[in-house]
Amino acid sequence: MAVATQSLEEICINSIRFLAIDAVEKANSGHPGLPMGAAPMAYLLWDRFMRYNPKNPKWFNRDRFVLSAGHGCMLQYAMLYLTGYDSVTIDDIKQFRQWESKTPGHPENFMTEGVEVTTGPLGQGIANGVGLALAEAHLAAKFNKPDAKIVDHYTYVILGDGCNMEGVSGEACSLAGHWGLGKLIALYDDNHISIDGHTDISFTEDVGKRFEAYGWHVITVDNPNLDEDTNLQTLTDAIEEAKKVTDKPSMIKVRTIIGYGSPNKKDTHGVHGAALGESEVEATRKNMGWGYEPFVVPDDSLKHFRKAVERGASYEAEWNQTFATYKTKYPEEAKEFERITSGTLPEGWSKVLPTYSPDKGTATRKHSQATLNALAPVLPEMIGGSADLAPSNLTLLKVSGDFQKGQYENRNLRFGVREHGMGAICNGIALHGSGLIPYGATFLIFTDYMRAAIRLSALSQAGSIWVMTHDSIALGEDGPTHQPVETIPSLRAIPNLLVFRPADGNETSGVIRWRSKTAIARLCWPSRGKIYRTWPELRSTVLLKVVILSRTAMARLT
Amino acid sequence: MAVATQSLEEICINSIRFLAIDAVEKANSGHPGLPMGAAPMAYLLWDRFMRYNPKNPKWFNRDRFVLSAGHGCMLQYAMLYLTGYDSVTIDDIKQFRQWESKTPGHPENFMTEGVEVTTGPLGQGIANGVGLALAEAHLAAKFNKPDAKIVDHYTYVILGDGCNMEGVSGEACSLAGHWGLGKLIALYDDNHISIDGHTDISFTEDVGKRFEAYGWHVITVDNPNLDEDTNLQTLTDAIEEAKKVTDKPSMIKVRTIIGYGSPNKKDTHGVHGAALGESEVEATRKNMGWGYEPFVVPDDSLKHFRKAVERGASYEAEWNQTFATYKTKYPEEAKEFERITSGTLPEGWSKVLPTYSPDKGTATRKHSQATLNALAPVLPEMIGGSADLAPSNLTLLKVSGDFQKGQYENRNLRFGVREHGMGAICNGIALHGSGLIPYGATFLIFTDYMRAAIRLSALSQAGSIWVMTHDSIALGEDGPTHQPVETIPSLRAIPNLLVFRPADGNETSGVIRWRSKTAIARLCWPSRGKIYRTWPELRSTVLLKVVILSRTAMARLT
Repeated sequence: MAVATQSLEEICINSIRFLAIDAVEKANSGHPGLPMGAAPMAYLLWDRFMRYNPKNPKWFNRDRFVLSAGHGCMLQYAMLYLTGYDSVTIDDIKQFRQWESKTPGHPENFMTEGVEVTTGPLGQGIANGVGLALAEAHLAAKFNKPDAKIVDHYTYVILGDGCNMEGVSGEACSLAGHWGLGKLIALYDDNHISIDGHTDISFTEDVGKRFEAYGWHVITVDNPNLDEDTNLQTLTDAIEEAKKVTDKPSMIKVRTIIGYGSPNKKDTHGVHGAALGESEVEATRKNMGWGYEPFVVPDDSLKHFRKAVERGASYEAEWNQTFATYKTKYPEEAKEFERITSGTLPEGWSKVLPTYSPDKGTATRKHSQATLNALAPVLPEMIGGSADLAPSNLTLLKVSGDFQKGQYENRNLRFGVREHGMGAICNGIALHGSGLIPYGATFLIFTDYMRAAIRLSALSQAGSIWVMTHDSIALGEDGPTHQPVETIPSLRAIPNLLVFRPADGNETSGVIRWRSKTAIARLCWPSRGKIYRTWPELRSTVLLKVVILSRTAMARLT
Repeated sequence: MAVATQSLEEICINSIRFLAIDAVEKANSGHPGLPMGAAPMAYLLWDRFMRYNPKNPKWFNRDRFVLSAGHGCMLQYAMLYLTGYDSVTIDDIKQFRQWESKTPGHPENFMTEGVEVTTGPLGQGIANGVGLALAEAHLAAKFNKPDAKIVDHYTYVILGDGCNMEGVSGEACSLAGHWGLGKLIALYDDNHISIDGHTDISFTEDVGKRFEAYGWHVITVDNPNLDEDTNLQTLTDAIEEAKKVTDKPSMIKVRTIIGYGSPNKKDTHGVHGAALGESEVEATRKNMGWGYEPFVVPDDSLKHFRKAVERGASYEAEWNQTFATYKTKYPEEAKEFERITSGTLPEGWSKVLPTYSPDKGTATRKHSQATLNALAPVLPEMIGGSADLAPSNLTLLKVSGDFQKGQYENRNLRFGVREHGMGAICNGIALHGSGLIPYGATFLIFTDYMRAAIRLSALSQAGSIWVMTHDSIALGEDGPTHQPVETIPSLRAIPNLLVFRPADGNETSGVIRWRSKTAIARLCWPSRGKIYRTWPELRSTVLLKVVILSRTAMARLT
């Protein structure tokens, strides 16, 4: 096909594909296959569906987007560049996977504005998406009024086969179905290829049926490309349908071709995680009728994409108008909304923390309970729960009921026996960026189940709080499967994670009161490249990365 | 109901229930609810279905049983006692959850003969079960002859809601469906109760449908009790049906009542994890017409259960006969079978290990590949693979094809992107006790996803081998989500786990050659009680708990 015969849509979609192809080729490292296959769905989302403001990436009411298949990050960088975010320029695209670039090998929320959560470890992103959608549902229930909906956005996730194989995604998606988070829309890039080859060798389950079992609304799209579907109508209809189903999360299972456009490598694992190579890039250009030099986006295409800037300004202006109305009619609520979403704690909040002189040998999990419940009325942004150990972790907030389908205003989250899902959901709630302070609890030993999410909470500066009880060797009759002998030092080894082990009531309150920047915030984290770099400073947020431990067993022994 | 009117079956089932009730009551700690609800299915399994020999718990061809819901361990101890295992006497039952007893708070394979795997951390047991069934399928394909089936047993698992909520079970069960492990039969104790209360608050997915999506054969049994189903025919039929379906694993979803028999606590979470209390024990005795003193098993009941001893002897004798025939007809195969199942490595095996003088800066993952492939022909008991990183971890054995449905003789396992499931499956393969040496591989950083299984591999003395590549800070362009800065020290902190990081070819071979008991085997592991106890000595097995690390990235930098 010649360029001349391509529709604007086709040119736009191919612009995404070739930015990915060229950037991976230049870096000689990366994953071109996913962006090439998923370009049509990304185009549709950014061009026809998502509401965002490229010039204000943090605009509160934006739709959230997560690339759960984080290795395909050139897709996301291409979209950020094309739609006009200042955070990713064409020069940044050319610096893909280079030292200190804005376009690292996996999306990092702390490096690139417009990236909501840090992905790469598979399955985390979709679980973060559940947390993002939960945050939206909660804030909407809390603040919206019939005549002024100030919280009203979707959460879109693109995930791949790997994400769907990981247990963490199953845990989180089961909860999303249970909670009926209708504004979560996941597009499953069903390309049948993973690193080891065709998914036939290890992944033959019926994913759609599994998600139906979780209580999701599932749609299958077999022809997501323009050569089969003029105007991408099938995929458009599917997303429209997903938006209409408001009582269930939706999964759109899109049968894509990995490396679409590459005549010799498409539909093979050869295009998953390596550059196409000079001759195949050339063959792909020829095959797709793409006569442009590397990194050149045709004017018409860029102009079309950049309409997002104007749209975004208008979305935000519209929302500002809604909020102005809200502020007039509901000044108290508006003040509280502004306080919470700006991440400002109320003055004097810490005065409610209990003090003791001294305490009377009470278990610290009880002190933790007292602390959480003292804070709950003054910090309504606290929301969290336990992985089916609420009566043991003592994490229930007495001021609230359970967060359940249709009762989204509540703050007690019932995670079930799903530690890893809990961790990733909490990270999503925190990274919604709306000031919510999530906490997740289990026995200390079971941090082993959720360690990947805990690590990401530190790395991505989420500020999630982990409340872990039942520490150490005197745990008693449950035996060594429940005795966290090595757990504290293992957690303390994670860079940027603060681990406290309070030993009495005053220390428990003190942990919560901790708020200064400390030496630990300067820890080095090595990153993409040949030398170390220093992590950005920790946000100085109260309640940041705290582990509250119990000395229950000790107390029982005395 | 009066004792006199109870059928022998009813008395047998109630014997199980009251052993659990009385033991938990005496310990004033434990989980009576599950054994009370699941007693009928346990009775059926041990009395009508399972082939085992109480006087030789390690008899090779026994059916394997796993209590994945390990907190309900009094069920398992009751069965071991009742059916005549020497490892659990009535005095041991009375010592439930006491210091150094044979009846610890969760089943520990290294403490109690007859317990196949260590459970308690939820979801691990069912995933171990997948490994046990895989081991059976593999050995059957390898050794059985049309006229002499020497490997031929089922794997039965009882699992609960918690197991089904955990992601690790989903990962492993998806693989079990993919592999079509038809001799794996899981009984889901669907009691609708977890620690936080009714499962309605967090677990409303359609579990049966989910397992169908995994490719399992699913049966639902709504009336598993004698008061609804004379002779337990429905449950019996279900297990019979499950046995007949040979190309898919089976799940029997059994709607049980937690704490069945307790008039005031049944069907509540109050009976999940605490003793009934004196008055409720009395009320339950009255309700069930149980006139016996604590720990007294009626003679008829014990006599009936103990028929298992005679049955077991006869099963084993029959198998010995089969094996004798096999040995006559297939002496070479029989010799190899005896060598492998006794855990004896062939003489001089380590001579095949590569040596270098010195090597030429090759990445250690390549040395690992050379080592694995040098060993593969001489150690046919090696079986394993990677969590979808085979081309990176370099773990494929060239002498074998992929282990797939109907190709169970092969040794390359394709785990997909399921690190945690891989870990628990490898542990199950190892704990099949038939000399198989499983290994699992991924990037070092993703040990975070499978840490719970790695810890159990050390605690339960499984001897699984973890081959982890792509270590440390010079990993390069993938960024900090893939850089295992803190991972090695975190793993080294796990008691009884040996972590090696070879730096060249000779060290890689040396790691494999390591076989002596070392100081680390004497590490203290604190356990159930007030003081420390020393772990039983490590089995002195070659290839025990090895982590082979790569310096790939380093090599790329030079």
